[in-house]
Order: sequence, then C-alpha cells, then structure tokens
Amino acid sequence: MRNIKLTVAYEGTAYNGFQRQLNGIGIQQILEVRLAKLFGHELKMSGAGRTDKGVHAYGQVVNFMTNGTIPAQRIPLGSRGLLPDDIVITEAQEVDENFHARFDSTSKIYVYKIYPHVVPNLFLRNYAWHIWKDLNIDDLQEATQHILGTHDFSAFCAAGTSPPLSPVRTLIAVQCQFDGDILEISFWGTGFLYHMVRNLTGTLVEVGLGAHSVKDFKRILTSCERKNAGITAPAHGLYLKEVIY
Amino acid sequence: MRNIKLTVAYEGTAYNGFQRQLNGIGIQQILEVRLAKLFGHELKMSGAGRTDKGVHAYGQVVNFMTNGTIPAQRIPLGSRGLLPDDIVITEAQEVDENFHARFDSTSKIYVYKIYPHVVPNLFLRNYAWHIWKDLNIDDLQEATQHILGTHDFSAFCAAGTSPPLSPVRTLIAVQCQFDGDILEISFWGTGFLYHMVRNLTGTLVEVGLGAHSVKDFKRILTSCERKNAGITAPAHGLYLKEVIY
Repeated sequence: MRNIKLTVAYEGTAYNGFQRQLNGIGIQQILEVRLAKLFGHELKMSGAGRTDKGVHAYGQVVNFMTNGTIPAQRIPLGSRGLLPDDIVITEAQEVDENFHARFDSTSKIYVYKIYPHVVPNLFLRNYAWHIWKDLNIDDLQEATQHILGTHDFSAFCAAGTSPPLSPVRTLIAVQCQFDGDILEISFWGTGFLYHMVRNLTGTLVEVGLGAHSVKDFKRILTSCERKNAGITAPAHGLYLKEVIY
Repeated sequence: MRNIKLTVAYEGTAYNGFQRQLNGIGIQQILEVRLAKLFGHELKMSGAGRTDKGVHAYGQVVNFMTNGTIPAQRIPLGSRGLLPDDIVITEAQEVDENFHARFDSTSKIYVYKIYPHVVPNLFLRNYAWHIWKDLNIDDLQEATQHILGTHDFSAFCAAGTSPPLSPVRTLIAVQCQFDGDILEISFWGTGFLYHMVRNLTGTLVEVGLGAHSVKDFKRILTSCERKNAGITAPAHGLYLKEVIY
C-alpha cells in the first residue's frame, strides 16, 4: 500500500465544512468520492485540520492509503476534471507509510482577512470580513503582540463547547499587515482551540473599533473567561494557509 | 422631476448581462425593480454600457428620472438591504435634467484580468482568465502598443454580428501590468465595438503564448478581417472599470 499526501485548496462557501458529516456535504466527502474514480477503490482520508462551514483553505493537507498505481505527481492534473471548480489539489506526493496528516503536523498557519472600508467590496463578500467603520490599526497591531507565546486561551475558546483537556496553546508568530486594501492577520501556532482564531479576531477588531483598549485586551486574555471576550468573527474571512510537519 | 446618476459595481457571474431582457435576469432589471421600493414608483433606467453575461463592473453608470424625495447621498446605504449582495451602488448624485448615462459618456475604461500560473487559483475562477502556460509578457506588452490611437478595429469585432456604422474606434491609453499575480490589461477608449476588448485580449494572449509574433499582431489589426484574429477571451475576466463624462 502507498501513502499519498495531498495539499488541497478550497473555497468553503458552498460546503458544510471540511469533515465528512451527516448534515450537508463536507469537502472531505467530495475528495473521497471523486478521487475514488482515479484510484479504483474506496478512499478513507485523514485531514490535518477541520475547517468550519464557510472557511477556506490554501493548504489543507490530507493523506490516504491506496494500492492504485497512478504516480503522485499526476494527481493534481488528473483530478482537475473530477473535482468541482472550488476544490483544487495543488500538490501530491508519496510519503512514508507512517505519515499521518493530522497527528504529524507540528504547527499550522491561519490567516484572517478583513476589508475595512465604508463601502463594501462585493468581490470580497465571501472572502473577507467587511468592517465599515474606521479601525485603529496601531491599537489592533499592539494587541496582537500580547497573544504571542504560550497562554491559557480559555477566553477565546468557543462558547458552549466542552473544554479541551488543556486550554493552553502556543502562538509562534502573529502578523497583522495590509495586502493592498485587505488587512491580513496571520496566526502561526502549534495548536488552536475550536473557534480560537475567529474569537481572537473578533476581539481584536473590537480593539480596533475602540470598544476595548489594548490594556482591556490583555485583561480579557488573562481573565480566561469567554464572556469577557468579543464576538466571533465570521467564517468567510478565515483561511487555513499552511500545515507544517 | 429629478435626474439621478448612480455608479454601480456588480459581479456578473449570476446574471444574464446588464441589460433588461427576456431570457434570464439582467442587472438593470434588478436595479429597476428593487429601487422602485425606495422611490415609490416604477423606474426606467439608462445604462452607460452593456456588459455581457459573466462580465463584472466596478463603475457602471446609470441614470433615471424620479419624483421621489430621498436625498441622493442616502441612496447607497438605503439600497443595501434591497439589492442582492452581488450588486452595490457605490455613488449617487442628482444631476442636470439633460444628463444621459449612455449618450453623454465621452470615454470608458475596461480592464481584463489574467491569472498566468500552472495551477489554477480557485478564488479567482470567476474573476480572472486562468492561463496555465508561460506568457511572454514583453511581447504581449509590445503588441498592446500597436492598438493605441485611432484604427479600424474590424478584425476584433464580434464574429457573425451585423457590422456597426463605422468600425473605427480610438484607444486613448492601453496598459498592461501585474497587480500581484494578476496581469491586468486596461483599455481606455472613446468607444468599443461589440466583443472588441475580449477579442483583443484573446489575440494578445495568443501573442504571449507565441502563437503570433508582434508583427503578426500588427498585420491582424491592419487586415481588418475577424478570421485572422484569435479567440474571444472569456467573459469572467472582464470588468467595466469607469465611465467618463
């Protein structure tokens, strides 16, 4: 049996998240069903990270075992006609039989895109969060520096979910900069709580809007209380950018 | 009666072009029907330019007469809840009663976006033409300089349509440059034949791919024969950027 690792980009708008599930179509399901035609047998894939409904990916990673003979480098082109046009395999390689997309990942990079402008840009409506009031970018950037490093991120964990074994996570780097008109906040971390990036972003934007000071933001983090933090930023601004091994 | 001028941005993907028509929904129809609620009576709009099915606009201009009393500057915000999220009014002003969006326009700028990369970018699939082979940008840029000025553009007129009164048009400026990964060709002209921008772009891309030399391109233009020119570039890469008065 060969172990194949795929890097997959997708637009999440039309899907009910990445994972195979009972309610609605997950991207994993599309990949398993459509690529089965290329390999001649049923496929069971493991994905590096879940992404929620509406969340996008530049570099989701999946792996699966196959006895199909198609060379790995032919998979990106060979899959193009089989996959819908909002899911693209950008890379494929044969890896060691022990490689596991989820368990072997050492860190991940998520990017959140914000479009701060009084008039919405309709071409970004599914790709960036539109904030129509002025943002204080200096404050927002200063606040991001407080989440660098290892912290208990309970304040930014999804409300109403059962708490994870440990709410401590490490952010290796956080950047906040404009790419043209779009403000991109990137979070490079060894692990993330459920909704952590969206909750951090929602609260950071509230800092930018003046609803919290940078000091408040620091206090919210150390309070470890979800109720002190801000809103959950919408899914459509979030991208799983890269999975690192 | 007041004469209102609107600047409208839209994504053309879901519509059958700008004009009101019998087959499918045109963007004009959506504007007329939805904005009627804001003005309290039926509206009859004139648009500065047609755009085909799939073509987008940053700055289409329309005007209409109304006896409604809503101040012009309130229209962009007031219309947001009435319009679908792929049509946005970006500006509105009250203009002289004689102003006509189409007849008073002195020039227009169209932009054509190309994504030259071996792997398609799925986030651009409705917004730029994906060319997966290498493009010779120097040749492509050199060729664009030959269409500057006043020419008989018959070679780039839509095939199978009845010829216009005169196929002579003037291009004031043509630019071809990268914005990030996207090659943008902008055409600023006093007038355009039907499909002229898409036919020019299709032929320019063929120059970039080496199918024609720059000399060939010049010969195609002066031949005034549609059959000598290249393919029609797809609609989804084209944008009506600005209408000038």
